[in-house]
Amino acid sequence: MMMRVEHDLLGDLEVPRDAWYGIQTQRALNNFSITGVPISHFPAFIRALAMVKSSAAWANRELGVLEGRKADAIMAACEDIIQGQLHDQFVVDLIQGGAGTSTNMNANEVIANLALEKLGHAKGEYQHLHPNDDVNRSQSTNDAYPTAVNLAVQFAAEPLEQSILSLIASLERKGVAFADIVKMGRTQMQDAVPMTLGQEFEAFAVNLREDIDRLHEASRLLCEVNLGGTAIGTGINTPAGYQALAVSRLAEISGKPIVSASNLVEASSDMGAFVMFSGILKRFAIKLGKMCNDLRLLSSGPRTGLAEIHLPPMQPGSSIMPGKVNPVIPEAVNQTAYQVIASDLAVTLAAEAGQLQLNAMEPLIVYNLLNSIKMLTSACRMLEERCIEGIEANREQCERHVDNSIGIITALVPHIGYANSTRIASRALQSGSTVRELVLAENLMDEEQLDAILSPRAMLSPAVLAS
Amino acid sequence: MMMRVEHDLLGDLEVPRDAWYGIQTQRALNNFSITGVPISHFPAFIRALAMVKSSAAWANRELGVLEGRKADAIMAACEDIIQGQLHDQFVVDLIQGGAGTSTNMNANEVIANLALEKLGHAKGEYQHLHPNDDVNRSQSTNDAYPTAVNLAVQFAAEPLEQSILSLIASLERKGVAFADIVKMGRTQMQDAVPMTLGQEFEAFAVNLREDIDRLHEASRLLCEVNLGGTAIGTGINTPAGYQALAVSRLAEISGKPIVSASNLVEASSDMGAFVMFSGILKRFAIKLGKMCNDLRLLSSGPRTGLAEIHLPPMQPGSSIMPGKVNPVIPEAVNQTAYQVIASDLAVTLAAEAGQLQLNAMEPLIVYNLLNSIKMLTSACRMLEERCIEGIEANREQCERHVDNSIGIITALVPHIGYANSTRIASRALQSGSTVRELVLAENLMDEEQLDAILSPRAMLSPAVLAS
Amino acid sequence: MMMRVEHDLLGDLEVPRDAWYGIQTQRALNNFSITGVPISHFPAFIRALAMVKSSAAWANRELGVLEGRKADAIMAACEDIIQGQLHDQFVVDLIQGGAGTSTNMNANEVIANLALEKLGHAKGEYQHLHPNDDVNRSQSTNDAYPTAVNLAVQFAAEPLEQSILSLIASLERKGVAFADIVKMGRTQMQDAVPMTLGQEFEAFAVNLREDIDRLHEASRLLCEVNLGGTAIGTGINTPAGYQALAVSRLAEISGKPIVSASNLVEASSDMGAFVMFSGILKRFAIKLGKMCNDLRLLSSGPRTGLAEIHLPPMQPGSSIMPGKVNPVIPEAVNQTAYQVIASDLAVTLAAEAGQLQLNAMEPLIVYNLLNSIKMLTSACRMLEERCIEGIEANREQCERHVDNSIGIITALVPHIGYANSTRIASRALQSGSTVRELVLAENLMDEEQLDAILSPRAMLSPAVLAS
Amino acid sequence: MMMRVEHDLLGDLEVPRDAWYGIQTQRALNNFSITGVPISHFPAFIRALAMVKSSAAWANRELGVLEGRKADAIMAACEDIIQGQLHDQFVVDLIQGGAGTSTNMNANEVIANLALEKLGHAKGEYQHLHPNDDVNRSQSTNDAYPTAVNLAVQFAAEPLEQSILSLIASLERKGVAFADIVKMGRTQMQDAVPMTLGQEFEAFAVNLREDIDRLHEASRLLCEVNLGGTAIGTGINTPAGYQALAVSRLAEISGKPIVSASNLVEASSDMGAFVMFSGILKRFAIKLGKMCNDLRLLSSGPRTGLAEIHLPPMQPGSSIMPGKVNPVIPEAVNQTAYQVIASDLAVTLAAEAGQLQLNAMEPLIVYNLLNSIKMLTSACRMLEERCIEGIEANREQCERHVDNSIGIITALVPHIGYANSTRIASRALQSGSTVRELVLAENLMDEEQLDAILSPRAMLSPAVLAS
Repeated sequence: MMMRVEHDLLGDLEVPRDAWYGIQTQRALNNFSITGVPISHFPAFIRALAMVKSSAAWANRELGVLEGRKADAIMAACEDIIQGQLHDQFVVDLIQGGAGTSTNMNANEVIANLALEKLGHAKGEYQHLHPNDDVNRSQSTNDAYPTAVNLAVQFAAEPLEQSILSLIASLERKGVAFADIVKMGRTQMQDAVPMTLGQEFEAFAVNLREDIDRLHEASRLLCEVNLGGTAIGTGINTPAGYQALAVSRLAEISGKPIVSASNLVEASSDMGAFVMFSGILKRFAIKLGKMCNDLRLLSSGPRTGLAEIHLPPMQPGSSIMPGKVNPVIPEAVNQTAYQVIASDLAVTLAAEAGQLQLNAMEPLIVYNLLNSIKMLTSACRMLEERCIEGIEANREQCERHVDNSIGIITALVPHIGYANSTRIASRALQSGSTVRELVLAENLMDEEQLDAILSPRAMLSPAVLAS
Repeated sequence: MMMRVEHDLLGDLEVPRDAWYGIQTQRALNNFSITGVPISHFPAFIRALAMVKSSAAWANRELGVLEGRKADAIMAACEDIIQGQLHDQFVVDLIQGGAGTSTNMNANEVIANLALEKLGHAKGEYQHLHPNDDVNRSQSTNDAYPTAVNLAVQFAAEPLEQSILSLIASLERKGVAFADIVKMGRTQMQDAVPMTLGQEFEAFAVNLREDIDRLHEASRLLCEVNLGGTAIGTGINTPAGYQALAVSRLAEISGKPIVSASNLVEASSDMGAFVMFSGILKRFAIKLGKMCNDLRLLSSGPRTGLAEIHLPPMQPGSSIMPGKVNPVIPEAVNQTAYQVIASDLAVTLAAEAGQLQLNAMEPLIVYNLLNSIKMLTSACRMLEERCIEGIEANREQCERHVDNSIGIITALVPHIGYANSTRIASRALQSGSTVRELVLAENLMDEEQLDAILSPRAMLSPAVLAS
Repeated sequence: MMMRVEHDLLGDLEVPRDAWYGIQTQRALNNFSITGVPISHFPAFIRALAMVKSSAAWANRELGVLEGRKADAIMAACEDIIQGQLHDQFVVDLIQGGAGTSTNMNANEVIANLALEKLGHAKGEYQHLHPNDDVNRSQSTNDAYPTAVNLAVQFAAEPLEQSILSLIASLERKGVAFADIVKMGRTQMQDAVPMTLGQEFEAFAVNLREDIDRLHEASRLLCEVNLGGTAIGTGINTPAGYQALAVSRLAEISGKPIVSASNLVEASSDMGAFVMFSGILKRFAIKLGKMCNDLRLLSSGPRTGLAEIHLPPMQPGSSIMPGKVNPVIPEAVNQTAYQVIASDLAVTLAAEAGQLQLNAMEPLIVYNLLNSIKMLTSACRMLEERCIEGIEANREQCERHVDNSIGIITALVPHIGYANSTRIASRALQSGSTVRELVLAENLMDEEQLDAILSPRAMLSPAVLAS
Repeated sequence: MMMRVEHDLLGDLEVPRDAWYGIQTQRALNNFSITGVPISHFPAFIRALAMVKSSAAWANRELGVLEGRKADAIMAACEDIIQGQLHDQFVVDLIQGGAGTSTNMNANEVIANLALEKLGHAKGEYQHLHPNDDVNRSQSTNDAYPTAVNLAVQFAAEPLEQSILSLIASLERKGVAFADIVKMGRTQMQDAVPMTLGQEFEAFAVNLREDIDRLHEASRLLCEVNLGGTAIGTGINTPAGYQALAVSRLAEISGKPIVSASNLVEASSDMGAFVMFSGILKRFAIKLGKMCNDLRLLSSGPRTGLAEIHLPPMQPGSSIMPGKVNPVIPEAVNQTAYQVIASDLAVTLAAEAGQLQLNAMEPLIVYNLLNSIKMLTSACRMLEERCIEGIEANREQCERHVDNSIGIITALVPHIGYANSTRIASRALQSGSTVRELVLAENLMDEEQLDAILSPRAMLSPAVLAS
């Protein structure tokens, strides 16, 4: 490979001649090889970095601390990257030491070299436009990097929200389709009282929908950025007025309601908004997991389980047992949920490890947040398209369960009392008789009254009359 | 011990003759002995239970399904309990099987017996007023218990909020007191650029204050209750109109803006609001932990550490090393924070384990939420009174650190460039000279200019002029 | 309350006149009020502390650095405490700052005052025998405390082991009792192939039994102690020969094969053995949780679940649904398991937070280890006595499941091939016919051959003949 | 792309014509897209799968249930894969539903097609040799997959062990190199008593070395496999004698002491060995993290921190602060450690989620175990080569710290008592005087005696004489 030589604080180092990145990116490549997942795995992050750099260049130009010609070249380079160019040049491992410095320098170097080309210079001719002095002007990793992360998480959350909404719509359709199928509700895995299968799916939908609001709230916290705070939030090396200009420009470019954090010293080390966002992802994962557990329970069988619904078969279920079809999609979602819960712990550990004016573990937070968002986005789509859409109800089984159930005796309590009801329930369990038979045999109620109260429909809503 | 005999579904059982609780509480006592922590450990929970029972009785009376005389006796009993009576009769272990049934029955039985007394009957004469048929009327554990928990967490959060606010005020006072002490900021444990000690404490305060809003948001979610949903959210065995009456009565009694959840089937098994609240407690614990880590770093020494602040000595630090004083209060807070983080995992595990129409693990969630709130309340008070209030600055050490620092060279970058600055920094590190000496020796700037830029005060805010 | 005044590094403080503890314990009482759980909650810990103190006194006497009269009084006091006296004087909250100094001083002070009495002096007359100079002689909290913890965990693990073994025996008895009940095995909640109910319970027993070995291995790691290392492992302030004498004496008194760690500097801050022990507790909790999940699945019903076993009813299951009996014991065990898993996270967080020569968070580790052991001990007993012992099989349901099952077609694969078998399975599922009927209808095998292969017994073990 | 059509239980599907995998792999590709990490990311896993398949073929041939020609072709295909061929054909996402069926079928299909080629047939001509009937003969995913995982983890652990041992050796070299540099030990971040820098590094080495033994123990548990148990451990569809033959053959091929688990029903759903292995990885991560925390503390500065060691600079530390060099390598290791701790939680969650005869979440366990091993292997190498090797001591700073310290007064306690020592310590702290000066001023000891006791060397080991 043809190489060029660049220079930094630590001396000379060779960089591939055609690389758009430079020496500090190369050092990071040599230093960090942990996850094998480079920045380019998350395009939303690259776009966010370019938006931050562009906003800074614009503010610097406005304030006269960056030559117009240079600023324009930088902004043009950023625009190319926002449009999707050179993403493969963002090569550094997401888990890195240096609190994001390598990621920030990767961006500075790629932008510098692309801007150099626009100005008619060769890669590496930094005397004409410098990654630090020009692209990084008025910035520190410590404000540019977290600001970009705040933005990247919001960008990444958009497709997640779409896939959640689509999943919810699918669940709602099932709620409607199954609205007239009466089944037994269960509490603590024991037969309880009747409900409809439609209510069950509608409840899934309602349950997930609440998290859309939570995601919005958590995104709102990410709109407060520390751009302009530079190294530790005091704004050292920024021109007066820079912060306000850079932030408002970023809001404009990104289309997000970005504002300055009220206290930049605090904001420099605060991981609170990330912890919050991760917490919401965890909450959503818990709900998704609970729902998939239920789907696996309800579809258990075909002959020796609950078997109230059929999941669509997606692949042969067994290499040894012919005809077996397993709930593979919910199982994959369950595992995704566990991984997201575990990622929240990684975020927690990293957030707690901040020291004094900075949190050096922020790259781990970024890695886990972006990864969780990506995995959940896939999981929701997979669940909708490859499972929920194809679910069919086993109406006969649902109705048989209600007919056989003892739990319906609950509806008689206001009429014959808790003690009588308890006795009848015990006898039903021991004898195998139905509740109906036993109540009639004991002359506790007449047939007509009993029919009215034990009609499944009657048991689906409040119905007790004052005695 | 003198005993009386009571009867339930499973047969007869002896209960202490003077006990206000009854047979089902006694069974729970026999069954569960896990934590040793009874309900009475958390008075807010008992008050919440009594409010729910009182609201139900009121609604039942209004709708004519509970005799006025009985309802009034029940409400009077509840009021006594709200006022603090008989709390020692809430004896069941917080970790229990049955999704809270034992807690609910403990409340039903104590209230029934107290109401019986008010009506002139003896304990256990349930033919006159029954724990299930009357006190629990129109309710199931599955709506009464979670509704009480929602309320209890809000009650318990009030003293927590007070102790956080008081801690914040203390940090703010230190922020003001230390406002003119210039020190070196540190990033990644390496010398960075100047700031004030006041800014450091102010940042602590700002950081914690954000969580007050988060607590309020999380409390708001807890205002949605499933009271009236009974067993699985369908409202079986409630009279029409009951739900609205009971919920509005509860809002009135509790003074909280309690409303009905929009979908009671969903609400019956949803643990989302608890997960959210626990997540906020975790977030706060992370912040508290980070701050205490910093306090321990900043007070490290006395001779071989950072030694920029002195914590007030609270106890001799060592059984072997005379004169040693350790940061015992922050250490205890750190441990509390870890415990709260761990409790959030318990809440997570329990929340994910819900099945179908109910989450049987809710008692574990209650235990961990109430415990975390209680521990954090104590920890904040302890931290404020026994540590923050007594912190003194070591002004000499702070200033010496700034004078010796190389990091101040950052302020020269806009004037002599990143490359020159880097070279000077390296020479300073190797030679032991100061930045100032080296810049003058190289004639890079004149003395007056240098004084202006390197004045610590100048470095505390944006200051770069357009060139 | 009558008070006496004591003095330490920080000045004078009042202590209750009758208290056997002294000023430093009093300071700790004033400082720490987090969990409300005092040392006395864990008698094994108090015994361990007394054994360490007694061993140190003995070694000090042997080496001539502690007067015989004093040493003897100290050892006599320790013996009283080992026998159970004055445990209520160990009052400090288990979660405390100071790396255990308060616990160590609580022990030093109680022992000093008890020894003083034996020597005819009043409480607090430390000029005759001093908590630090005499009781703590040749020790630091940093070696005495962790050594006692190592021992305490081993002591506490003994009843845990007994309760696990007893639970295993109970499961094994069920394995024998259910040995001839054939049922369908399930994988991924879908019908698989036949097995016996006895095999299922035997598997539970085997699964738990493996952890007895793991507990022993983990206990062995706790036998390495750092006693004699004092403050940081260098043994400062110990007489030559002290370490070996004290450790061998401790082995003798405790009856445990206690030895010196090979490197005391390392051992002073190493939490590895605790992490290991906690990991084993977590592993056991996971297994216990999985088993209880299974018990709840297998007993689901009575009419709409798997209903292959009946758990003994322990309490009425519902305040609203008469006759409902819930699996309350497994539910309580599941919650215990979650709490233990969460405690392992607390141990993890604390262990990672060690700094330089010590881990200041060790008290949190102690609290969680001892608590988890105690909770698991109760949970195992409860599970055995109140659940496993009373489990009954539902033989009819088990057999009906096998007869109806499609999964038995697996046994035909070696005879009619995977493709044929798959086709038959699909037809059975759609038509409701049995596998047997369809195979005969297609003339794929004759009746006799089919009977032999599809005999449930034949399907319980390897059986394929070479073709 | 040219396609071929294959057929399974669910119907026809196109597969790329040149693909060595078949229809079930293709379905899995369509179904699962969660992590983006395919099996081929972990060559050790592919080798393990091929060894299992080869052993099964061999045993089947020996027992006459698989034609010699077919068995030989299968074994030859497996050997090619073991040697590294066709790894890019193992394309399925590691996180998948189906309890590993897709991974098992990916292996079955690639091996079948490779064996078909060896027999002169085209890909997909399964009538001559079938992925299920021949390659998977006498196996189920439920025994073949976990057996391969057991082996894969052992293979993957070998380079991890090498990198840990190499790291330990590096730490030991530093222990020797720094053996004569006396410094202050610190407990709870406060000055304690003297030690050597060599002791500090030696302790790191000793601490990590213990985990080599733990890894070996955990690997030993993985040697027990359930191969031969097929679907649920009853060995259905295996010829008599198969289990013993297949397992002993696997031991031979793999070079590992593989044996049969004692109870295959238990072994089929037991995740205990994985939980154990993950727990050891977590333990190691905790230790690694603690060490890196210490390295960052000890190298803090250069002017305002502890500054007792210098880490080798690996990259410029800041995009804004010239000359700043950050501890980027330990920071990256800390983050790796957090990720491993989080992965252990994922393993825990998955292990607890097993149901009845199988754990459907095993793929998540595999993903996290192999990922953690890989990350730790890289992290240890990085830490050794890019950090530990280049660490230099700051001898002057270390010695200055000892000279200024008050903590050395500890050595005087056996001579002047705890009370006197405490008083001197307080005066030293307030006055800024040294301990030595104050003791001489008070005539508590003479100069010669003081010199002997306060010699740093004297304070490094037990030294008290009987008085």
